[in-house]
Amino acid sequence: KDVSPESGQSRHEQVVFCSDEQSGLRAIIAIYNTTLGPALGGTRFYPYASEQEALADVLNLSRAMAYKNALAGLDHGGGKAVIIGDPATDKNEALLRAFGRFVESLSGRYITACDVGTYSEDMDLMSRESRFVTGRTVANGGAGDSSVLTAFGVFQGMRAAAEHAWGAPTLHGRRVGVEGVGKVGHRLVDHLIEDGAEVVICDVDERAVERVKTRHPGVEVVADKGALTRADIDVYAPCALGGALDDETVGRLAAKIVCGGANNQLAHLGVEKQLAERGILYAPDYLVNSGGVIQVADELHGFSMERARDRATRIYDTALKIFGLAEEEGVAPAVAADKLAERRMSEVGRIRGIWLGR
Amino acid sequence: KDVSPESGQSRHEQVVFCSDEQSGLRAIIAIYNTTLGPALGGTRFYPYASEQEALADVLNLSRAMAYKNALAGLDHGGGKAVIIGDPATDKNEALLRAFGRFVESLSGRYITACDVGTYSEDMDLMSRESRFVTGRTVANGGAGDSSVLTAFGVFQGMRAAAEHAWGAPTLHGRRVGVEGVGKVGHRLVDHLIEDGAEVVICDVDERAVERVKTRHPGVEVVADKGALTRADIDVYAPCALGGALDDETVGRLAAKIVCGGANNQLAHLGVEKQLAERGILYAPDYLVNSGGVIQVADELHGFSMERARDRATRIYDTALKIFGLAEEEGVAPAVAADKLAERRMSEVGRIRGIWLGR
Repeated sequence: KDVSPESGQSRHEQVVFCSDEQSGLRAIIAIYNTTLGPALGGTRFYPYASEQEALADVLNLSRAMAYKNALAGLDHGGGKAVIIGDPATDKNEALLRAFGRFVESLSGRYITACDVGTYSEDMDLMSRESRFVTGRTVANGGAGDSSVLTAFGVFQGMRAAAEHAWGAPTLHGRRVGVEGVGKVGHRLVDHLIEDGAEVVICDVDERAVERVKTRHPGVEVVADKGALTRADIDVYAPCALGGALDDETVGRLAAKIVCGGANNQLAHLGVEKQLAERGILYAPDYLVNSGGVIQVADELHGFSMERARDRATRIYDTALKIFGLAEEEGVAPAVAADKLAERRMSEVGRIRGIWLGR
Repeated sequence: KDVSPESGQSRHEQVVFCSDEQSGLRAIIAIYNTTLGPALGGTRFYPYASEQEALADVLNLSRAMAYKNALAGLDHGGGKAVIIGDPATDKNEALLRAFGRFVESLSGRYITACDVGTYSEDMDLMSRESRFVTGRTVANGGAGDSSVLTAFGVFQGMRAAAEHAWGAPTLHGRRVGVEGVGKVGHRLVDHLIEDGAEVVICDVDERAVERVKTRHPGVEVVADKGALTRADIDVYAPCALGGALDDETVGRLAAKIVCGGANNQLAHLGVEKQLAERGILYAPDYLVNSGGVIQVADELHGFSMERARDRATRIYDTALKIFGLAEEEGVAPAVAADKLAERRMSEVGRIRGIWLGR
């Protein structure tokens, strides 16, 4: 009946199109829900081919944040923003601050942070216009680079997967293939080496590979994702682009565990089943990579790395719980994770009905 | 390059899609600009066939409010909202209050009021969730029915047109055709009769006609708009639907003045020229019908009917100014009105650059 393209937002609480002609700002802020509290999620600065494409992306991303934040035990709903443009050429102070004013105008219902194409320095600028900005630089009282706890959280998820699959929460003696050793991947390698794992890596960026080889000369390097996923590895850790787990990759994977930092690892619905049928334990992406949002959410209460790290450690417990639940109910862990997230949103969300003030 | 339908918003500062599944709320709030202050404009509750149609409407209406508010001398930018649904069946307390919360969430950048399908009682409900609601009932401290000053303002504009066309600011002895004697039209008839005019009316609603005939037995009734605009009248006052001035109507009109309360009277761009070429003086719709928004804007400062009426009286001066400007520059009054509105937005808007605080 209603075929207009915006109807994609029908399940989203609020979608805000922002524009400031002079600075060239064109942005969309999507709030999937505020059931657990103010929506929290980063701002992506990306040269989308059309407004339509930007809208589709921000609707998906904000929904994913709702589940991520719920499962991470945060008091935050799901939100995300996109700025349409090339950060290399279109980013400027006026544009970022104009965007900050729109964030401020939503009276705290949406809190922004870094994402693809935005950095802590950009958050510093936005925060000059809005109180609802996190992930600022350490110099500015912020939590700084959130890939620190993202990598730590992925490692905790991997330990839980090892415990579930092999009976011990360690990667000691296991071969782990890390695809992508950028901001998150190279820190994950540090944790793995420290834990006594053998590590195989690949990355399209030569310099990123070099950096890891310099720190850890024993790490093995392979040419590309194809070589990595065909290799004799115990764990596959996708830490690069989304969609890592397509039919082809899943079909040839020797690894018994998949656990990595990338977003949206499942290329399409149904891949989670294929993984289960092949006996591969999949640690849901949005659970294990939630260390980053845990880190920036902590900043809202005056950043404490100790407190944030403690909370990120709990990714281990949640992962174990999900693996157990999945087994019990005969579903894939990705399905169990969604279920747990939805349960928290509905059970904890409803207590706000208990009157305490306006 | 960008062909997505949302790009229609490119000149709008902010467009907000709101949804609340449980209450069935689907709404769009459009803020054209906030150059002169918080955007002010009513909420239309209408069974749009699609979200696309609702979006097109709210984008047009919010832009028109920017011009109306600027020319009315208000400290308000242009905004408008639409709720998608049939007010007869879909309106309920939860939906109106959910909408109120979205209005509140924009931190005062948008202030709502009545429009087609919404009433002061609805504003009372919304105001239980938001401070940014005006046009409430008198019992609730509101300005009440804004058609009082809308009709008064149209009358002032008509007096100015009479002064410009005939040298005296009165309709005494003139024949005025009023199309539509609903909320605004029947009050305009009161003013005209009091001023000594002869009045001809038509309305699709028999009861509306009856009400006028009872109050003013001397008023002449004709069958429809066709008969009214073919009649021997001096002034044509469209007070019904938009688009009253199409090619056909303008071609046959005997009246020397057009001045009425309807919105968007010009059916398409260019009609303002045809009117001028036929020697018909057109009082720009959004100027002469701004008494209503003047009335509800006053409520934001604690409603005073005396103060609001004083301000609405100035529609007379502004109309005279526009007729003079149009003659001087050889353009249609509608063009002169746009120019004056744009001048105020740019000249008065820029003073906010003088620093006084955040």
